[in-house]
Amino acid sequence: MGDRYDIAIVGSGPAGLSAAINAKIRNKNIIIFGNKNLSSKVEKAPKVNNYLGFYEITGTELRDQFQKHINSMNIDITTERINTIYAMGEYFALAVNEKMYEAKAIILATGIEYTKPLKGEEEFLGRGVGYCATCDAPLYKGKVVTIIGYNREAEEEANYVSELAEKIFYVPMYKAEYNLKRGNIEILKDKPLEIQGDDRVRNVILKNETIATDGVFVLKDSVAPNQLVPGLLVENDHIKVDLNMSTNIKGCFAAGDCTGKPYQYMRAAGQGQVAALNAVSYLDSL
Amino acid sequence: MGDRYDIAIVGSGPAGLSAAINAKIRNKNIIIFGNKNLSSKVEKAPKVNNYLGFYEITGTELRDQFQKHINSMNIDITTERINTIYAMGEYFALAVNEKMYEAKAIILATGIEYTKPLKGEEEFLGRGVGYCATCDAPLYKGKVVTIIGYNREAEEEANYVSELAEKIFYVPMYKAEYNLKRGNIEILKDKPLEIQGDDRVRNVILKNETIATDGVFVLKDSVAPNQLVPGLLVENDHIKVDLNMSTNIKGCFAAGDCTGKPYQYMRAAGQGQVAALNAVSYLDSL
Ligand SMILES: Cc1cc2nc3c(=O)[nH]c(=O)nc-3n(C[C@H](O)[C@H](O)[C@H](O)COP(=O)(O)OP(=O)(O)OC[C@H]3O[C@@H](n4cnc5c(N)ncnc54)[C@H](O)[C@@H]3O)c2cc1C
Ligand SMILES: Cc1cc2nc3c(=O)[nH]c(=O)nc-3n(C[C@H](O)[C@H](O)[C@H](O)COP(=O)(O)OP(=O)(O)OC[C@H]3O[C@@H](n4cnc5c(N)ncnc54)[C@H](O)[C@@H]3O)c2cc1C
Repeated sequence: MGDRYDIAIVGSGPAGLSAAINAKIRNKNIIIFGNKNLSSKVEKAPKVNNYLGFYEITGTELRDQFQKHINSMNIDITTERINTIYAMGEYFALAVNEKMYEAKAIILATGIEYTKPLKGEEEFLGRGVGYCATCDAPLYKGKVVTIIGYNREAEEEANYVSELAEKIFYVPMYKAEYNLKRGNIEILKDKPLEIQGDDRVRNVILKNETIATDGVFVLKDSVAPNQLVPGLLVENDHIKVDLNMSTNIKGCFAAGDCTGKPYQYMRAAGQGQVAALNAVSYLDSL
Repeated sequence: MGDRYDIAIVGSGPAGLSAAINAKIRNKNIIIFGNKNLSSKVEKAPKVNNYLGFYEITGTELRDQFQKHINSMNIDITTERINTIYAMGEYFALAVNEKMYEAKAIILATGIEYTKPLKGEEEFLGRGVGYCATCDAPLYKGKVVTIIGYNREAEEEANYVSELAEKIFYVPMYKAEYNLKRGNIEILKDKPLEIQGDDRVRNVILKNETIATDGVFVLKDSVAPNQLVPGLLVENDHIKVDLNMSTNIKGCFAAGDCTGKPYQYMRAAGQGQVAALNAVSYLDSL
């Protein structure tokens, strides 16, 4: 439990960054959660032509421009993943595993998960399938856990769970030098097809083999918004907002891909700005 | 009467430019109306810190970045002021004095006029007060006309009207080398306070003198949106849009300051993108 921030921003893509610079310019005490690389959806773009002011810029270059901007304004990304956000009335409590942050207003800028759920994933959710390995790790003491990781942060979760579980199968959905620390983690470079079980998860079927497992964690870039913030109103898988980027929860704003299509940088950044300025108005009205 | 464009964009600020690049990327046949300097609200900004990707950039530098972007995509600004837009059902007719352009869809990105109307301006609108000098010039053959000009384009209108009117008083609301061509134009560097009359305009009261006049043109950067597009729904002086930037008129979209607050570049550019992509969807659905 630390200070209570004015505004907590969840997500470090164009929406979250734009929210951060605008809230900071308005002298608000902010914290922004996200990734060291800011957003893989920015970093991995081959060529960007539709961000007004930059023509034929690569995703990496655009990310560097964003990074330079926030550095100049002394904005640091807090590289933690928020698991759940509770609306407490007067403030919001943001949970990162066992840690808690507090803020008077929040801006959700989590992006959207493009990948479809695996066959069986939704069926076994809560019955062996989970989205937060570090949260549920205690359940798997001495057991076999499969982690399907969509990004490098999943490696940290695998390392953490490996201290408790007997055995970890790590199925990376991306290419990298995997930084996995313990001998009980086995990397399977294979394609997951289905999660199977009876009353609970028993197997993960990969393209080339089937593995027996007690639990499966699917660690994607973002989780469903109404899972992140209980009570949040969602419409067609997107957070319902009005033109001020207000959600149905007072003091909770949203911006970027998580609010709907078209999925684009400029729209995300514009909405991030609007969300921040309205969050500032909200704070001033308290 | 020329070709019928897919999309006509009115305004060359960040909203209009962002709309243009996005519509062009989607291979639409577009025309964009605006100014050579793009937008004085961009050009005149002393220092911009809240446009994600550029930190401590001057307005002039930002305008140059925008110009470079559209140049690289072979987008040219058509430097004409649209006076009125008629929704014809199947298409839109855009009137520039005696010329007409046609487009299947339109995007309004005209910005907003910050200055308040003069005392008497609204009262005498249509009874000697007008917003388009070149349109109404024939009414003032041999008469005395006062032009209150908020920008350099007003000088061209003054030159045009001076060919018909007997006498022009030109009241510039900005500082520049005025390029006024005829001897019957008198420049009054004074502050207009009120427009007076009876059944119609008779006098303009300036701070230091009162002048008798038959007509007054107030030439601002933009006119009220529902005056530009008859039938357009306006709410609190802004164009009413939904999250897709659709207005109440089918095929008519809007973006930027003309849709509401906060008045900011990033919001404008983001909305321009959304307007363009939804205009493209609209065209594809025809
Ligand atoms: C390969 C590729 C190319 C693309 N090219 C273009 C293009 O040329 N032009 C264009 O306009 N758009 C392009 N896009 C789309 C664009 O990337 C997205 O629309 C944009 O990134 C959305 O921004 P955002 O801020 O909403 O979300 P994102 O950029 O997705 O950022 C969200 C961030 O929040 C983090 N996050 C999520 N949940 C949490 C949590 N609980 N705690 C902490 N952090 C969290 C995520 O890890 C991520 O870093 C492209 C996308 C891809 C994948
Ligand atoms: C001095 C100053 C500093 C500012 N600083 C900042 C800042 O630091 N950060 C920030 O985010 N915002 C800033 N703003 C606000 C910002 O300028 C506006 O929000 C932004 O320019 C709006 O963009 P827009 O595209 O909607 O409209 P505009 O930029 O106003 O562009 C509209 C264009 O359309 C043209 N037009 C209008 N009607 C017609 C017509 N009928 N036919 C043809 N063309 C037409 C206009 O002449 C104009 O060129 C500043 C504004 C000013 C005045």
